Amino acid sequence: MAGDMMLYWGSGSPPCWKVQIALEEKNLQGYHHKLLSFDKGEHKCEEVMKLNPRGQLPTFKHGDVVVNESMAACMYLENRFKSQGTQLIPDDVKEQALVLQRAFETSTLQQKMYEVLFYEYYVPEPERHESALKRNRENLKTELQLWEGYLQQMGKGSFLAGKNFSMADVFFFPAFAYIPRFGLSKERYPKLTEYYEMVKERPSIKASWPPHWLEKATEGDTLKDL
Amino acid sequence: MAGDMMLYWGSGSPPCWKVQIALEEKNLQGYHHKLLSFDKGEHKCEEVMKLNPRGQLPTFKHGDVVVNESMAACMYLENRFKSQGTQLIPDDVKEQALVLQRAFETSTLQQKMYEVLFYEYYVPEPERHESALKRNRENLKTELQLWEGYLQQMGKGSFLAGKNFSMADVFFFPAFAYIPRFGLSKERYPKLTEYYEMVKERPSIKASWPPHWLEKATEGDTLKDL
Repeated sequence: MAGDMMLYWGSGSPPCWKVQIALEEKNLQGYHHKLLSFDKGEHKCEEVMKLNPRGQLPTFKHGDVVVNESMAACMYLENRFKSQGTQLIPDDVKEQALVLQRAFETSTLQQKMYEVLFYEYYVPEPERHESALKRNRENLKTELQLWEGYLQQMGKGSFLAGKNFSMADVFFFPAFAYIPRFGLSKERYPKLTEYYEMVKERPSIKASWPPHWLEKATEGDTLKDL
Repeated sequence: MAGDMMLYWGSGSPPCWKVQIALEEKNLQGYHHKLLSFDKGEHKCEEVMKLNPRGQLPTFKHGDVVVNESMAACMYLENRFKSQGTQLIPDDVKEQALVLQRAFETSTLQQKMYEVLFYEYYVPEPERHESALKRNRENLKTELQLWEGYLQQMGKGSFLAGKNFSMADVFFFPAFAYIPRFGLSKERYPKLTEYYEMVKERPSIKASWPPHWLEKATEGDTLKDL
């Protein structure tokens, strides 16, 4: 079933990682894949551009269906293999609403994370401002406090949107995992820390852990004061 | 059915407009709603903050279900009222994949549009750079050319992802509609212009047209050279 799937991906890219987790959770191991290097510009290679005019990763193909946007690919996999593996979007109306709400809210976390950790990557040197970076850090702090509060409300051992692992976790974890990597304070964010420690041991997460993160476990503690 | 729904919204906000279109398409007219002013900071009022700790619009409640992220609210409405009104996510696997792909791709268009039209709103004066604005305009141009190409491929009279109006159009139109409003070139973007002229006459779009846009039909032609 997974033999007619092809994923082009980059190590550590949150959008790629989302799709990889969804594939694992839906028991679609055995899909073809190709690891490309952003640094070498391989995401702009002809093979990718033919399927994805944006030249972005992930680029994902299933038979003759191409779905490149990571959230679209995850939703597609859930709908297409609904009864296979983990059900990522629950049937119950109220549970589903919370899963969708948290899942789409992760875009904001991801953006705020990028604006701090990849500020120098996205903003050319002459356009950088200390004031902007300071504001971005404050925004990320507010964002993390919000998610800490959400987990606090859910109670001990809960996933993001309930007792079960869901699409909310698929979308959240790959963006969030950057934060402990750069030194999240366990004291100020006990629930997020607990959540991180629990989810990182999940088989789908371990199987899809970014290869270059295995070589280097942390990247410092620039976020420890947040 | 719609009597137990409440939408807090702001005029012209693409995320709010998405939810309003979805409500119209799903025949959920008669929902309660409250128009709030961003300029007056009303989106941070207690009534909203109680339901939405982000203090953002839309804020949407259906019975005791709260779904504030616009994409989540639209997906929720589609799932909850699947057989009512317009089917926004088709059953056919291939059609569905394209709808999801285009729907989630609109986030990029929306971001590129904001980065040009609302640059001064989002970037404090001392941090503004001509070089950034120029780059943002180039990015928006590339983005528009991509969508023009998509419509070209779909053929005459098509919606974004096929013969039928879908979630792709619900997500796309409210962000895209800003572009003709600021002077889209009909010569360089004939397909986007044709699409705009067709979709703006749709009952769901007319019924949800931003009230302050009715008072003032255009906002100049700063995009005419794109």
